[in-house]
Amino acid sequence: MSADSPRSQSCTCIAPINIAVIKYWGKSDEDQIIPLNDSISLTLNTDYMYTKTTATISTELTKDSIILNNEEASGDGVRFQNCLSEIRKLAASSKHASTVEKSKLKVAIVSQNNFPTKAGLASSASGYACLVFTLAQLFELESHKSELSALARRGSGSACRSLFGGFVQWFHESQPCVARPIAEAQHWPQLRCLVAVVSNTSKAVGSTEGMSRSVKTSKLLEYRIKHVVRDRVEEMKMAILQKDFVKFAELTMQDSNQFHAICLDTYPPLFYMNSTSQAIIQLVHRYNEIRQNIKVAYTFDAGPNAVLFMEEAELNRFASVFHSFFGSIPHESFFRGKVLDPVDSTKDVEALGPDNALKGQVQYTIVCHVGQGPKNIDPTG
Amino acid sequence: MSADSPRSQSCTCIAPINIAVIKYWGKSDEDQIIPLNDSISLTLNTDYMYTKTTATISTELTKDSIILNNEEASGDGVRFQNCLSEIRKLAASSKHASTVEKSKLKVAIVSQNNFPTKAGLASSASGYACLVFTLAQLFELESHKSELSALARRGSGSACRSLFGGFVQWFHESQPCVARPIAEAQHWPQLRCLVAVVSNTSKAVGSTEGMSRSVKTSKLLEYRIKHVVRDRVEEMKMAILQKDFVKFAELTMQDSNQFHAICLDTYPPLFYMNSTSQAIIQLVHRYNEIRQNIKVAYTFDAGPNAVLFMEEAELNRFASVFHSFFGSIPHESFFRGKVLDPVDSTKDVEALGPDNALKGQVQYTIVCHVGQGPKNIDPTG
Repeated sequence: MSADSPRSQSCTCIAPINIAVIKYWGKSDEDQIIPLNDSISLTLNTDYMYTKTTATISTELTKDSIILNNEEASGDGVRFQNCLSEIRKLAASSKHASTVEKSKLKVAIVSQNNFPTKAGLASSASGYACLVFTLAQLFELESHKSELSALARRGSGSACRSLFGGFVQWFHESQPCVARPIAEAQHWPQLRCLVAVVSNTSKAVGSTEGMSRSVKTSKLLEYRIKHVVRDRVEEMKMAILQKDFVKFAELTMQDSNQFHAICLDTYPPLFYMNSTSQAIIQLVHRYNEIRQNIKVAYTFDAGPNAVLFMEEAELNRFASVFHSFFGSIPHESFFRGKVLDPVDSTKDVEALGPDNALKGQVQYTIVCHVGQGPKNIDPTG
Repeated sequence: MSADSPRSQSCTCIAPINIAVIKYWGKSDEDQIIPLNDSISLTLNTDYMYTKTTATISTELTKDSIILNNEEASGDGVRFQNCLSEIRKLAASSKHASTVEKSKLKVAIVSQNNFPTKAGLASSASGYACLVFTLAQLFELESHKSELSALARRGSGSACRSLFGGFVQWFHESQPCVARPIAEAQHWPQLRCLVAVVSNTSKAVGSTEGMSRSVKTSKLLEYRIKHVVRDRVEEMKMAILQKDFVKFAELTMQDSNQFHAICLDTYPPLFYMNSTSQAIIQLVHRYNEIRQNIKVAYTFDAGPNAVLFMEEAELNRFASVFHSFFGSIPHESFFRGKVLDPVDSTKDVEALGPDNALKGQVQYTIVCHVGQGPKNIDPTG
């Protein structure tokens, strides 16, 4: 926390996004945001994508306010109000007089996603994680990890996972319902991730409404919850702990596909993937075929953008192939977040069967790895 | 049968295609082609789409031969050989000496699908139904309806349904495994069907390989078979018998979506629908919304072409809307098989939200109704 005058104090933090490899889809309690199943995610490094939030408390403020991506968010911000009032309750019950005092002050919040707007990248997870983390720093509630994860959950379900770095599991039956790390960021240092930003994304049904519709209408979702996902969570945990890429990749792809199958079994059906997403899936399977092993995995959330996983040893080769198929801008501008070495992909492209129709269907790609949870970036933080 | 010389006899028949509204996907016996679940289909009229087969037996023939769509099909035609040898067995065990005699002769078959080539319309169902029906006519085995349905099934599973007109159920547990009519073609005279031939269809995994892959890898298919489809078959039968269009339409759409959900849950996933198929689905749901009732239903088989159902009262209105969105050729050339009256669709299109990007994504559309089973078209047949 910055050492302002006691009458006004502020704190700035950043928080990461996370990508689920075992998907969360469906709530048992819409208000409390309790999921129907456990999910597992990887927290991505914050070199290129993060939410940055500054929270200020001051005796001068007469009301709470929040500015999200340069726009005032007021009125209907129910979830924001929920988060804020819950964190105040936590602060008010503190043993520390200073925390109790601060809980009485009004708060001004400015939050900004640094990732490209309109890219269709989910921002609510990093956004609420950052909000909760920043307020916790300001109110000196950092030690209440479980309560904070539960609070972030009330803002946006998957935000509870973004409070932790590394490999994270969100438990649907825990009390309170929270996420906890499976392994830290450094556990699997070879793991790499490409976030492919697909061109021409079209508006789709939001995930809150979408999952509610699935719970009501998809008979297959019931089966997934009761009979599939429990075992998959355990298998995924083992694959991560053992750094078994082939198993990790298979489970990741199968769970992404099953999630989108549930969307299609929903009535009326939900389409989040588009023809580019399909082409990416088909390329990954064909690539794994010519490599005679599972070297790359895909996963898709409630949108057409692909997240691709591979190990460091495969990164430059696959990236060049991917760029050859989907990129229409130079290699060095197509990959962001980290400089990659271009590799001659002529032979691979020939083996895969060239398809010029795909050119330009991916705008660009962000290169990531598994990273840390939220952090305070104030000079004195 | 034509009254040729006794040393040479020939017979020409046509057979219809059928469209499943409760889908067949997955076999319990690959060789015998026993499905994992019952399915229900509608047989379409043969004014525009049919298979036409001529079978000739002659003492002059020294070997069996088959010409399919002007190409000689020999050698690996295992299913064809199965069909022919089974029907010969049936003929050889006949009480009629003439049938037994004929069963000893070699057969020459010429079969032609009159529906547009490369349109991605399934032809194997009408093809094998026509083959079996024509041979049965030639061998005077018409009365053996159950055996013939079972024989057609050995050629191509869903062919067993094309041996009957009207509304047909294929029973997976019957002995032998056959189809039987639920209601005849005249039962629901208002029912209409549009077969939309989608542009730019791409090669996909064949349905034989696809369903085998689903059986091996989709956990959701198991659930569909055990817990979903049995009830749906009964509900669909009731909806048909009661001519309850809303119920019929809902079940048809839900079952099509569930079938494609299973395809997506298959590993590696199967994509049969494309972005045009998605756009058609979305248009149908939006159209039903503005009509404040379910007026139109879609179903998709293992390809991107849509089959749309509606009642006669909705046909001209919906067809004009559909043409406005997807057609790039004049109304009178866009609809084939029956002349439709164009309706001013300006207001509907406005309510639905125009989308010029869809123009030309459907090549043309065939207008059909529920029709009769195969028939002998010889002048004396």
